[in-house]
Amino acid sequence: MRDAYLVGAGQSAFGAFPEKSYRSLFRTAFEAAVESVPDGLEPGDVDEAFVGTLGVGGRQLGLSGPAVTEHVGLGGVPCTRVENACAASGFAVRQAVQAVKSGMADVVLAGGFEVMSDLSSDAAKYWLGVSGETEWERLSGTTFAGVYAQMASVHMEQYGTTGEQLSRVAVKNHANGAKNPHAQLGFECSLEDAQSAPVVADPLNLYHCCPTSDGAACALIVSEDVVGEYTDEPIRVAGVGAGSDSVGLFQRDSYTGVPASERAAESAYEMAEIEPEDLDFAEVHDCFAIAELLAYEDLGFCERGEAGQLIESGATEPTGKLPVNTSGGLKSKGHPIGATGAGQVVEAFKQLSGTAGPRQLENPTRGLTHNVGGSGGAAVVHVFEREGAEVDA
Amino acid sequence: MRDAYLVGAGQSAFGAFPEKSYRSLFRTAFEAAVESVPDGLEPGDVDEAFVGTLGVGGRQLGLSGPAVTEHVGLGGVPCTRVENACAASGFAVRQAVQAVKSGMADVVLAGGFEVMSDLSSDAAKYWLGVSGETEWERLSGTTFAGVYAQMASVHMEQYGTTGEQLSRVAVKNHANGAKNPHAQLGFECSLEDAQSAPVVADPLNLYHCCPTSDGAACALIVSEDVVGEYTDEPIRVAGVGAGSDSVGLFQRDSYTGVPASERAAESAYEMAEIEPEDLDFAEVHDCFAIAELLAYEDLGFCERGEAGQLIESGATEPTGKLPVNTSGGLKSKGHPIGATGAGQVVEAFKQLSGTAGPRQLENPTRGLTHNVGGSGGAAVVHVFEREGAEVDA
Repeated sequence: MRDAYLVGAGQSAFGAFPEKSYRSLFRTAFEAAVESVPDGLEPGDVDEAFVGTLGVGGRQLGLSGPAVTEHVGLGGVPCTRVENACAASGFAVRQAVQAVKSGMADVVLAGGFEVMSDLSSDAAKYWLGVSGETEWERLSGTTFAGVYAQMASVHMEQYGTTGEQLSRVAVKNHANGAKNPHAQLGFECSLEDAQSAPVVADPLNLYHCCPTSDGAACALIVSEDVVGEYTDEPIRVAGVGAGSDSVGLFQRDSYTGVPASERAAESAYEMAEIEPEDLDFAEVHDCFAIAELLAYEDLGFCERGEAGQLIESGATEPTGKLPVNTSGGLKSKGHPIGATGAGQVVEAFKQLSGTAGPRQLENPTRGLTHNVGGSGGAAVVHVFEREGAEVDA
Repeated sequence: MRDAYLVGAGQSAFGAFPEKSYRSLFRTAFEAAVESVPDGLEPGDVDEAFVGTLGVGGRQLGLSGPAVTEHVGLGGVPCTRVENACAASGFAVRQAVQAVKSGMADVVLAGGFEVMSDLSSDAAKYWLGVSGETEWERLSGTTFAGVYAQMASVHMEQYGTTGEQLSRVAVKNHANGAKNPHAQLGFECSLEDAQSAPVVADPLNLYHCCPTSDGAACALIVSEDVVGEYTDEPIRVAGVGAGSDSVGLFQRDSYTGVPASERAAESAYEMAEIEPEDLDFAEVHDCFAIAELLAYEDLGFCERGEAGQLIESGATEPTGKLPVNTSGGLKSKGHPIGATGAGQVVEAFKQLSGTAGPRQLENPTRGLTHNVGGSGGAAVVHVFEREGAEVDA
């Protein structure tokens, strides 16, 4: 099957923008993606689109995909809305890859958006909760912070993970986000700040939780047959993997791992023919600090139970062996649900095309993105590789 | 790119089942699909799934795809929810075809479901409305019956289409549905009944509108590499096409056609290398009687403006040149939104595998399915062909 390439990606700023509509945010992201294509791309070249959104607030709950693509001038182009909760646009990117590999499309837009900040806190809680298992978790009062707090509690008990290690995730990601002009919480925080924040759902405090965000992000995926028209330095989608699992945490055998992420990573590594050691950076789904630590283990960055030590070692700092969430992650950059997966791909594109500005890593050739829906009901992993990486590595 | 094949399809009955959950309906459809595979298929063979639903009622609004696939024993398998309003599972089938053609999956489940009948009529109206254009149509009070009534009005004025011709759609589809044990309104109606029904949105009356339904449907799409394991009489997905358009009717240049359907059909015919004349039957999206007439024109079954005469001529009766909606269509079979597109594929499978019972057509070799989202914001068309059709035709 033919190869797929990432030729452009862009996003709106993530933050609280009560004056902006979901359509205008999507337009900003789409235009940024188009402008990022090295040798230029005409919107008219796009022959298929996938849009991820949870539909928070119920604005245009049905057909929201075509509603945003028509707004950016893609009326007529086949457009499909994809939704897997917080992994909506990670799966939209995966569908774009499938569309290209299928031979049914050559230039595919994969994007996502969410507008959340104009809701009351009760409404926001409802809309975030709709991706939780309904009968036994959401309706019994369990929030997502509560679900991840359960995971954190078990991890701490079983492996000795500490609250300080959780806080170190926040400190690292805020330091990274402070270098990202698109970050919602683009300021540094000290370990003391992170340790002394008010509790949200014990053991998780405010600095262990990502914010509520508005934003949009887009990526452009093209086939090997046309990639030469858009860039001389192609970034190949070397691996794609996905997995699913029970939607309710209560149905799982273990709380100290996310099997859907493990399956997604395994498939992506196999397709890319690489090991985790071959990665130069990763954007992982840190909706809560514990989620980043679980990702280290699920994605094979360290053994099960050793994520606390890994963050403490500095290995996932920008100067470490495997920088994680150079964008600031969901924690600092923000988490507009449907935009998050495509937003991670924006960071991968920037790092691999050398356009990440003050947070640019030194000549990376291969990066991973990891996007999780709910508490792990769905997960998707991509591996992106600068052409010629084999040689450079 | 490799070919995709339809090896099985099945559905629950469509109707009002207040005692059944969306999970149990989906399970019924999945089991029926698995059982329909001529040489047998193990659920464990499925390596990817796409699930279409609008999420009416907001039961499990996020992650509802994995929520139903885990329930049928596919936990772990990548599963993506697809939503394009009433075309949700038509697009799920299209994604299954892309997944197979991409080489990333060999055996793919495409299904859909909806539960609507347990809602109050106000709630049902809200949930149906969410796929309408929000700002200028839904919030100004326009229902879907109202949107299609506008289309009907213009078609009647412009082409002389009559209320009687609209009613003939109902008469035909009820006669077909009366032979379908899965139909919600499985009874015949006379032209007098259809003509004298109470007005819903002038010029559309009750018999010009499909019902509110519960139900689920599933299809199994496999690659050419494995099709031989499942059947000796393969049904090829010969053509796939999709299109989009403005979500709001008010934004369109014309009300007497659905450009998204035209685009979808054009692509599907081109891929299948056929003309409309080469079809032996079609399942079209008759959410309202006018929608079936528009489909005749959009899909090239007749010239623009001539659909009224086509229904009157009897050409789309089971005994006619091109039988349309032998299943009973949305009108009589029912329209559980997310299940409708896959439900059309169930009829195509039954007709092409000779298992349609009392409504079986004589040895058909090629059929089309046509699924529309909203008032035409998205549309998807498939052409299915019994292997060897070229020779038989």
